[in-house]
Amino acid sequence: MELLKNKIVEEGIVLSDTVLKVDTFLNHQMDPFLMQEMGKEFAAYFADAGITKVVTIESSGIAPAIMAALHLEVPMIFARKRKSLTLQDGLLTAKVYSFTKQEENEISIADKFISEDDTVLIIDDFLANGQAAFGLMELVKQANAKVAGIGIVIEKAFQDGGKQLREQGVNVYSLARVSSLADNKVTFATEQIEEVGV
Amino acid sequence: MELLKNKIVEEGIVLSDTVLKVDTFLNHQMDPFLMQEMGKEFAAYFADAGITKVVTIESSGIAPAIMAALHLEVPMIFARKRKSLTLQDGLLTAKVYSFTKQEENEISIADKFISEDDTVLIIDDFLANGQAAFGLMELVKQANAKVAGIGIVIEKAFQDGGKQLREQGVNVYSLARVSSLADNKVTFATEQIEEVGV
Repeated sequence: MELLKNKIVEEGIVLSDTVLKVDTFLNHQMDPFLMQEMGKEFAAYFADAGITKVVTIESSGIAPAIMAALHLEVPMIFARKRKSLTLQDGLLTAKVYSFTKQEENEISIADKFISEDDTVLIIDDFLANGQAAFGLMELVKQANAKVAGIGIVIEKAFQDGGKQLREQGVNVYSLARVSSLADNKVTFATEQIEEVGV
Repeated sequence: MELLKNKIVEEGIVLSDTVLKVDTFLNHQMDPFLMQEMGKEFAAYFADAGITKVVTIESSGIAPAIMAALHLEVPMIFARKRKSLTLQDGLLTAKVYSFTKQEENEISIADKFISEDDTVLIIDDFLANGQAAFGLMELVKQANAKVAGIGIVIEKAFQDGGKQLREQGVNVYSLARVSSLADNKVTFATEQIEEVGV
């Protein structure tokens, strides 16, 4: 998605070979027009996938997810993240390890919001090692619902979350795929990703 | 706002005299069409206030805030919430006590995102005792920016946050004002709120 790639080039700051700071438009300050356009793009790509619910995780996933849900005309649900969760009935839960923060979180969604009749689109801002994506898929599976695919704003293609997910047959659609952050520079992936079952 | 009030009546669950559960459309599952319409309503009300930034707090404020920002055509910034924050440079910070969770959080925004030239609209999902609103106003004041007003989805008018803010001359615009949750029933406030300086 050119609009997004241009933003990354213009405003993204490469902090290290693995860390790209995009807090001016994606995960602290947010560009609402960009969010809207990304939501339209996700909705267009998954238009024929029979999506009934969009699922994301707080906080940075919420804006792109609500825009995708708006254009798909379905509800959006965001998973909550807690360091330790007091036991509660009626929750789908999964553990997600954050390599960035080096801590394990429990993520959860009220089970009344996803049923076996649902076809879910998962949205998140970043895909690196895939921990959050696998955690969200786990929640959807616990509800016996179907995962139609995963929409990602920025995929770090040099980490293996995307590869692992695609090898499992998951349709991962990333609006920007960064192949390298070496030499203080953002390089985008050029290879075609084979589409899976959309 | 009738659309919102109807949703509250149809789907809201009164858990006690002070707690209204609206997790089917506002703060866990979210109705994207309602979010869009609320964003338009905030944008219309504050259209002539010279807003340059919309500020909210994670997580439930993000969706209404991004929609308001979209229609005001300005960036949105969400404050982060942490139980204890490691000292970091370049942050505006304030302490916010949550009566619901009985814990104090530190909220923060990177100071590069708000300057003295900004006129800020604060958006949040609930207004009860006003702790979050006062915390967000504190962040804006630290940046020497102006608070144009506060847009709230649901105000609990039987708690005194709204009264305190309005007494300080803050323009608080709530899309739904609940005057009572007594007898397991949602009652909306009928009185006119005097507009302040819009």
